[in-house]
Amino acid sequence: MINVGVVGCGYWGPNLIRNFLESDATRTTMICDLDPERLAPMTRRYPAVRATTSYAEMLADTEVDAVAIATPVRTHFDLAMAALKAGKHVLIEKPMTETVAQARLLIEEAERRRLTLMVDHTFVYTGAVRRIRALVDSGDVGDVRYFDSIRVNLGLFQHDVDVIWDLAVHDLSILDYVLRQTPVEVSAVGANHIPGMPENIAYLTLFYDSGVIAHVNVNWLAPVKVRRTLIGGTRKMIIFDDLETSEKVKIYDSGITVTQDPEQIYQMLIGYRTGDMYAPKIDGKEALRVEVAHFADCVATGRRSETDGVAGLRLVSMLTAATESMKSRGRPVALSFEGVAP
Amino acid sequence: MINVGVVGCGYWGPNLIRNFLESDATRTTMICDLDPERLAPMTRRYPAVRATTSYAEMLADTEVDAVAIATPVRTHFDLAMAALKAGKHVLIEKPMTETVAQARLLIEEAERRRLTLMVDHTFVYTGAVRRIRALVDSGDVGDVRYFDSIRVNLGLFQHDVDVIWDLAVHDLSILDYVLRQTPVEVSAVGANHIPGMPENIAYLTLFYDSGVIAHVNVNWLAPVKVRRTLIGGTRKMIIFDDLETSEKVKIYDSGITVTQDPEQIYQMLIGYRTGDMYAPKIDGKEALRVEVAHFADCVATGRRSETDGVAGLRLVSMLTAATESMKSRGRPVALSFEGVAP
Amino acid sequence: MINVGVVGCGYWGPNLIRNFLESDATRTTMICDLDPERLAPMTRRYPAVRATTSYAEMLADTEVDAVAIATPVRTHFDLAMAALKAGKHVLIEKPMTETVAQARLLIEEAERRRLTLMVDHTFVYTGAVRRIRALVDSGDVGDVRYFDSIRVNLGLFQHDVDVIWDLAVHDLSILDYVLRQTPVEVSAVGANHIPGMPENIAYLTLFYDSGVIAHVNVNWLAPVKVRRTLIGGTRKMIIFDDLETSEKVKIYDSGITVTQDPEQIYQMLIGYRTGDMYAPKIDGKEALRVEVAHFADCVATGRRSETDGVAGLRLVSMLTAATESMKSRGRPVALSFEGVAP
Amino acid sequence: MINVGVVGCGYWGPNLIRNFLESDATRTTMICDLDPERLAPMTRRYPAVRATTSYAEMLADTEVDAVAIATPVRTHFDLAMAALKAGKHVLIEKPMTETVAQARLLIEEAERRRLTLMVDHTFVYTGAVRRIRALVDSGDVGDVRYFDSIRVNLGLFQHDVDVIWDLAVHDLSILDYVLRQTPVEVSAVGANHIPGMPENIAYLTLFYDSGVIAHVNVNWLAPVKVRRTLIGGTRKMIIFDDLETSEKVKIYDSGITVTQDPEQIYQMLIGYRTGDMYAPKIDGKEALRVEVAHFADCVATGRRSETDGVAGLRLVSMLTAATESMKSRGRPVALSFEGVAP
Repeated sequence: MINVGVVGCGYWGPNLIRNFLESDATRTTMICDLDPERLAPMTRRYPAVRATTSYAEMLADTEVDAVAIATPVRTHFDLAMAALKAGKHVLIEKPMTETVAQARLLIEEAERRRLTLMVDHTFVYTGAVRRIRALVDSGDVGDVRYFDSIRVNLGLFQHDVDVIWDLAVHDLSILDYVLRQTPVEVSAVGANHIPGMPENIAYLTLFYDSGVIAHVNVNWLAPVKVRRTLIGGTRKMIIFDDLETSEKVKIYDSGITVTQDPEQIYQMLIGYRTGDMYAPKIDGKEALRVEVAHFADCVATGRRSETDGVAGLRLVSMLTAATESMKSRGRPVALSFEGVAP
Repeated sequence: MINVGVVGCGYWGPNLIRNFLESDATRTTMICDLDPERLAPMTRRYPAVRATTSYAEMLADTEVDAVAIATPVRTHFDLAMAALKAGKHVLIEKPMTETVAQARLLIEEAERRRLTLMVDHTFVYTGAVRRIRALVDSGDVGDVRYFDSIRVNLGLFQHDVDVIWDLAVHDLSILDYVLRQTPVEVSAVGANHIPGMPENIAYLTLFYDSGVIAHVNVNWLAPVKVRRTLIGGTRKMIIFDDLETSEKVKIYDSGITVTQDPEQIYQMLIGYRTGDMYAPKIDGKEALRVEVAHFADCVATGRRSETDGVAGLRLVSMLTAATESMKSRGRPVALSFEGVAP
Repeated sequence: MINVGVVGCGYWGPNLIRNFLESDATRTTMICDLDPERLAPMTRRYPAVRATTSYAEMLADTEVDAVAIATPVRTHFDLAMAALKAGKHVLIEKPMTETVAQARLLIEEAERRRLTLMVDHTFVYTGAVRRIRALVDSGDVGDVRYFDSIRVNLGLFQHDVDVIWDLAVHDLSILDYVLRQTPVEVSAVGANHIPGMPENIAYLTLFYDSGVIAHVNVNWLAPVKVRRTLIGGTRKMIIFDDLETSEKVKIYDSGITVTQDPEQIYQMLIGYRTGDMYAPKIDGKEALRVEVAHFADCVATGRRSETDGVAGLRLVSMLTAATESMKSRGRPVALSFEGVAP
Repeated sequence: MINVGVVGCGYWGPNLIRNFLESDATRTTMICDLDPERLAPMTRRYPAVRATTSYAEMLADTEVDAVAIATPVRTHFDLAMAALKAGKHVLIEKPMTETVAQARLLIEEAERRRLTLMVDHTFVYTGAVRRIRALVDSGDVGDVRYFDSIRVNLGLFQHDVDVIWDLAVHDLSILDYVLRQTPVEVSAVGANHIPGMPENIAYLTLFYDSGVIAHVNVNWLAPVKVRRTLIGGTRKMIIFDDLETSEKVKIYDSGITVTQDPEQIYQMLIGYRTGDMYAPKIDGKEALRVEVAHFADCVATGRRSETDGVAGLRLVSMLTAATESMKSRGRPVALSFEGVAP
């Protein structure tokens, strides 16, 4: 039984608190937030969990084995470093840190102390994304040629980071997990439509030496929510629509064919899709439940997590470069993943 | 009654032939194709229409008032210039020409001879796009902030131009017509997945001095067909889904609101859309039928078309710059529309 | 603050427990189930709530003001009558009772003792259904002509009642609430595909003197879940799709027109819908939360509930007659609602 | 080459005219309509086809081998009988005749003269329905348990028959073709909302000795068009949605399971579908084109059509009984198919 302290009781923290409580392998021992008003509803719901506004108190508590950090990005590094130095295992919200250098320091500290350092790339623990990786790994899809993701949210926001750091981070975590490749260059564009706020719409493109091109479209100001990823392979293509209730993952038979036959061209022009389609039943278990079990397993066995600090660093690296490219309207920025490739 | 000669009986030509025949104001007098096998099914269906493999013969025919050009892009300039020089009005398939210089020469020639020069930007003549422009013009939408279009086709193709010239041209024609603004810079990226073929996937972004950002996602190798455009305004947002049978245009009440209220943030995170939605019934008339009537009217009255040579030139300019940017992985390319703004 | 005891901790009970806890006006004081294994997870989650396997104990408890009954239908009458006799207000799961006579006895007992007797017709408390009734009441819809509802579930079940009592009860509760009319005759058909189990598929039709026809299609063995209700009025028509995330209620301009004009006929045949469509944003609050507040208000003020025992009796009456008609393959059965009309 | 005369140039006739012209095995030689204004646009489009307002003239023409009848139902018998007596093969629009007796006379006359008598049950010739029958025949679906079809049209009509004869006839033709069984009883209900017009909404249920139950929901006054058929088998279930562009036929793995396990029950309640889903690519060829080729083959070889007069008679029998049941609000009417079973 691993005792977990959760810091940050805003939007995501309560999900961590609940899942650490409901797991057989973990327990939420303590919760922490600077704002007592955020603690109150939690203690009302879970009277057995201790609450504090002092992070130092949580770290000093010897009962606490691990700390889960669900606070704003700019606080991640300090909170995580302090936790590691206090000998606690760490689960950290994504994006892992504000800079690649910070991520590297956390990785080194965790390795030195043989502590688990894991980043909460939640999508990696969904039945849908795991199924997609299995499909790609099996070779059924052929060679992946492109990855094209849309993640747009409704027209209301309050954020301290731009839309790339807030939304694209999800797509990049899926991309990183499914593709097992690292990009060599990124080009990003975006716009800021509200004075004094960060970019609220952005498009980023990642280039890979293998010929893969990956594109992510993120937007905070859309009238409807969309979460859809298209993965094009030489033998099959996949559509992952996270808002679909009954057909989250669709797999299409659709090898790429080049033809000179005008009749076939015409068929293409009037058709609506190619080949048969197959939609496997997806495991609907809550991703965080799977992730919490995995975290407990890593802590207990010392095994390396599928979304360890190195995976977290790769994402921070892509996000940083994308933001840089966005400032110059798409000028490509080179990326290097030496020593941190998957 | 305007007598029209149609050159090119491939995919699109037959639609022109039929529409010029069915209009009260026009008649298809003659058809022309280098390949007699393409003429045969047309003459079988329309025995009263004369067929020829000689374009010179069509131009020499004094009965022919206007020529409609539905041949590959690389032939547009020569065929259109010859038609104008023979005193014929011209309707030309999009994209208008291969270069801006060619477009300019055609415009000048047509003006000198007081002939109608029109480009077949078909989408401009759909009930949906006309309705969208009316909405934007009325001020209901507020200030347009972004335009985001996806046009992906099924995995089979044979083309002499890249996917930008083949597909994005449609989105740019809608954008140009609806927005009435000209972009100042373009950044484009793309990839070619089939050796010896042009780029089959591309993303282009247009920047406007007004703060508008426009993005177009085009792809020949998708498992399903998608044609969807999102227009975000400060007061309303529009979704145009051309494959929707009953709700092609949806208008959402969704002004942009910035809030610090965590309850509202939470509502946003779990919501699926903002505000009421309204889907007007759209005029379902065939666009080409509307366009043919408009062309006949321009020829008869000398009025300037809504998709005249200048509109055609603007699109060629954007396409050319996008292709250039794509070669350097998104490096932005400046655009100038002096003297050709809408 | 009204203290509530909840009896039955199966599928629905936990929702009642949670909502009575979270409401400002009520509190879950006690829970009861014959099976201690069903009580255990509840007491783990809510340590402050007392648990018992003895219903008598709950009724004897003077702290308990009201009892919420979420047990199988066949136990409703005895449990509710005992509660009323113990002076408790009662919220009872739908269908209210097994027979009309039982429903009548409960109504009389509650009236005699001036206790609140309410039936949990949950759908009546959804934003969507309340919005639909407001639309019908306003006259915008014109005269309602038909009500057509589909409610089909996935292929797995364990039930002690047939599909009419399990699923159609929801549609009848919506119908009863929205229409404010009572049917005069019912015809029902159905089939039982699993030996020893009740009917798993059924269709019922209700006839009204006003000319309204209402039809409900219920099925436990469908491959996909469907919950969709169509309401046809002389001026507008409504589609309520409960599984739609962003457009639960759609209102169509579509007066009924009779024409001899072949062109219009043709337009109808190729069209996909008539008139404009409007989808208001629907209040997404949890229905049970609204209902619990309403129950507390009825208890506190003595006001009559919108889904009181009489409404519950009307549904039991329709269900009983439908089951009877189903046994004779659709032979119509007369209904009478004297003294219990809405 | 079979020379066909088409009588009736209203809504459907032009489709027959075009398909008989475009087939290699047939030719539209002559067309006939009492109204010269309906003939005019046809002769303009097809100058080589002879037109007449005299049906007698068409029958007297020795060049005409076969007659296709696309006139109102009440005229079918007289026109078809006259054609057979003139030695012509006959393709007749559905429903075949107004009465079973008329259908029987036509079958006898055709058999006596060894002429092809075929009914235009168009859906039988679609790729989707043929695929569905193949699936059922293969045993993959297991035993069919129910057939549930919805066919609703937009709110505008002009008809001389009720909605059962106009719309349900399509569903019955699919049912008859796919199931290869005959029903023993029918219960139907309906309503007429426009004074002086036939029933515009109806629901019919067919009972089979095998335990199959079939239900058809038809409605002329709906706000949106729906055409969807659900076929439930013991091993798989099929959804046929004719308005779907890319997934007309979906096949679900969903055997019927009875369980006592509450965890499974809960999974069912929150799930959206059961099992994997597979959507084969469906042959998109125009049904009438396939049907015309089949008709030509029957005429040339004397082979019996899949939708011969006997199939037509079965449908007339079901329609007649349904209309009778509808008059008594669902009272079941017995059916007999002695000698005419599939």
